[in-house]
Amino acid sequence: MDPRIEDHAEILVDHSASVEAGDNVVVSAPPAAEDLTLALCETIGERGAFPFHVSGRRDNTRATFLNAIAAEDLDNADHELALAEAADVWIHVRAHDNVANMSAVSSETMAAYQKAYMPIQEEILDTTWVLTQFPADANAQNAEMSTREYEDFVYGAIGKDWEEQERFQEQMVEILDAGSKVHIVSGDSTDVTMSVEGMTTINDKGKNNLPGGEVFTAPVADSVEGEVLFDKPLIHQGHEVEDAYVRFENGKVVEHSASKNEDVLTEVLNTDEGARYLGELGIGMNRDIDRFTYNMLFDEKMGDTVHMAIGRAYDACLPEGESGNESAVHVDMIVDMAEDSYIEVDGEVVQRNGTFKFEDGFEG
Amino acid sequence: MDPRIEDHAEILVDHSASVEAGDNVVVSAPPAAEDLTLALCETIGERGAFPFHVSGRRDNTRATFLNAIAAEDLDNADHELALAEAADVWIHVRAHDNVANMSAVSSETMAAYQKAYMPIQEEILDTTWVLTQFPADANAQNAEMSTREYEDFVYGAIGKDWEEQERFQEQMVEILDAGSKVHIVSGDSTDVTMSVEGMTTINDKGKNNLPGGEVFTAPVADSVEGEVLFDKPLIHQGHEVEDAYVRFENGKVVEHSASKNEDVLTEVLNTDEGARYLGELGIGMNRDIDRFTYNMLFDEKMGDTVHMAIGRAYDACLPEGESGNESAVHVDMIVDMAEDSYIEVDGEVVQRNGTFKFEDGFEG
Repeated sequence: MDPRIEDHAEILVDHSASVEAGDNVVVSAPPAAEDLTLALCETIGERGAFPFHVSGRRDNTRATFLNAIAAEDLDNADHELALAEAADVWIHVRAHDNVANMSAVSSETMAAYQKAYMPIQEEILDTTWVLTQFPADANAQNAEMSTREYEDFVYGAIGKDWEEQERFQEQMVEILDAGSKVHIVSGDSTDVTMSVEGMTTINDKGKNNLPGGEVFTAPVADSVEGEVLFDKPLIHQGHEVEDAYVRFENGKVVEHSASKNEDVLTEVLNTDEGARYLGELGIGMNRDIDRFTYNMLFDEKMGDTVHMAIGRAYDACLPEGESGNESAVHVDMIVDMAEDSYIEVDGEVVQRNGTFKFEDGFEG
Repeated sequence: MDPRIEDHAEILVDHSASVEAGDNVVVSAPPAAEDLTLALCETIGERGAFPFHVSGRRDNTRATFLNAIAAEDLDNADHELALAEAADVWIHVRAHDNVANMSAVSSETMAAYQKAYMPIQEEILDTTWVLTQFPADANAQNAEMSTREYEDFVYGAIGKDWEEQERFQEQMVEILDAGSKVHIVSGDSTDVTMSVEGMTTINDKGKNNLPGGEVFTAPVADSVEGEVLFDKPLIHQGHEVEDAYVRFENGKVVEHSASKNEDVLTEVLNTDEGARYLGELGIGMNRDIDRFTYNMLFDEKMGDTVHMAIGRAYDACLPEGESGNESAVHVDMIVDMAEDSYIEVDGEVVQRNGTFKFEDGFEG
C-alpha cells in the first residue's frame, strides 16, 4: 500500500475527526477507495474506536434513483437513518468508477432525491463529519491527469502541516473579521463590493473538508453591488457552465449570462428567491492546489482564487441567532485572481495578483 | 453483466427474502461481489424497498480483530447495532479477495470477537435474513476450480426451480417426521443410530441459505450410539481436519481422532459440555451440488451426503418450548453416502448408495 494512504487515514482520523476510544465511526467509501477504507478501519481500530464500513457507491445510488422508489418516501429508509443517528463520526470518501454514472438521472429526480434525503443528511451533519477524496482513476481522468500525477496532486494538497496552515490562514481571518467593506477586482470583467460587517470568518483547516485550505464568510445579502465573471468553469450536476457572468444590484442578481450552458445557470438562479443572492465569499489559500481539477473540494481552496456561492449561507458565519440568506441551493463559482487582480478590505489592498499582504513578494 | 447475476438477485429478493415495498433492506457484501451488489440494489429498488449497502469485508473485520479494540467492548458498537435493529431484511453475500485473510487471527481472538458480536448477530437473525455466495476468484480457487467453472457450479446450485425442489425434499421431511429411529451406515467405518422422536424436520428450500437443498432435524441428544468417520474434510476457522472420527455412547463423544489436525477437533469438542453431543442431523438433497468445494454453504447440501453437527441444536427442530442441546459451537461434518451406504428409518431403508426410495434407480 502507498504509505501516503496510511498518512491520509491518520490525518482524517486524528486531525480532521479527532476520533477517540469508544467512538462509533462510519466510513462511507466506495470500492474504488478500497485501500483507504482498509487503512481507515485499521487506524480507527487502533484508536479503540469502532469502524463500520458502508458504501457510498454512486452506482447503487443511481439504482435507487432510477427505480421505482417514490422519492418522497425515502424518509422511510429507517435503517440508514438509524445508523446516522447512532454514529459519532462520519468519514465520507469520494472516489468514482465513472464520474458520469449519474448522467441519465434528470435534475428533477436528483432534486427530489436530495430533498427526501435531507433527514438522513441532517443526522450526518450532526456527527463529527469529514469529506475527503481518494485519487481513483476516474477522478484523475476527470482532472485530465494521469493517475500517478493525480495521486501526487491529491496527497500534496492533503498531507500538509495543518497547524502551520491554520496559522497562515488566521492572518486573513483577522483581516476579514476586523473589516467591513470588501472590494474584489479582476481584469475588466469583475468589479464587485460587499459588506461582511458583523459576520464571522471561518478558518477551514482540514476539519470538515480534507483538503481544507480556505477562509470563508457570508456577505450581508443585500450589500452586494457590481459584476463578476467567473472565469473558472462551474460544474453543476455534471454540466459545465463556462464564463458565468452575473451582475448584482442591492445584492440581487439582475443580469446573467454564460458562454456555454447558460440555461443551467438560469435554472439555478430560478430555484428560489435566495438563489439570486450571495451566501458565501471564500478565499482559496492552499498553495499546494496549483491547478483546476473540476472538483470543487479542491478548486475552491486553490491559491490565487476567490469563490462566491449563490444561495444558502452557512450558519457558522452569521451573528448568533440570525438567519442569513436561505435557499435550497449553494453553488460555488470561482474567479482567478492570479493576474491583474486585487482584493481590498476597507480601502486597503490585502491581496494583489494572488499574493497576500502577509506573504513575500506582495506589492501593495 | 452476466444475466445469471440478475437472476441470482431476483431469487434472493423475491424467493429467499420476499422483499416488499417499504422494506428496509441491508445488502452486506464485499467489493468482490460488486456486480451482485448492484443487481440487488436495483432489484430491491424496483420492488419499492430501500437498499442500503454495507461491506462485509473480511479485510476490515481482520483490521478490527488485530487492532486494539477490546473484544468485550464490541457491544458498544451502537451504530452497527442500530442499523441491524432497524433493518427488516438482511442479505449477506459471501465473496472473498483472499480466503486466508483471517489466518493471522488466533482462535482465542476469533472466539472473543464472535461472543462480543452476538448482540448484533441476534438482531440480524431477527430480520428476514439470507446468506448466499458470489463466485469470486478467491472462492473459485479455494474450490480448486477455474472461475468460469465455479460460476457454472454456483449458478447451477442456486438457479433452481425452488418450488419443485421443496416438493422433492418434502418427501424426506415426511419420512423423518413420521419416524423415530435413524440408522446410518457407510462402509466399515460409520454405523450410528439416533432417535429423532418428537423432533421437527426443516425443509431448507432456499430461504435463509441460497443455495438451499437439505432437510435437517435435531437428534435426541443422549440417544446417539455408535461411530462415524466423516470422510469429507472439515474446515474449521481455516484449518482442515481430515478423517475426523467420533464414537458416541449415550449421545456423548467418548473417543475421537483425525488423520490431520486432530488437535483442532479436540479443541472444538472441549469447548463446553454440549460440544460433545450432536445438535443436528442433515441430509443433502441438492443434486446440482455434485462436488465438494470446501464451503459448507454448498457442501452440506450435496446430494449423496449426510452431515451431523456437534454442538448447538436449532430451535425450529425442537418441540415447542423445549431447549435442545446447547453449546457455543455448531460444527458440521460430512459423510459421503454415494457408495456402500444406507439410511434406515425405523428399520426401513430410505436411501441406498445416495439414491432415495422415492427416486428412480432406488434398490431397497
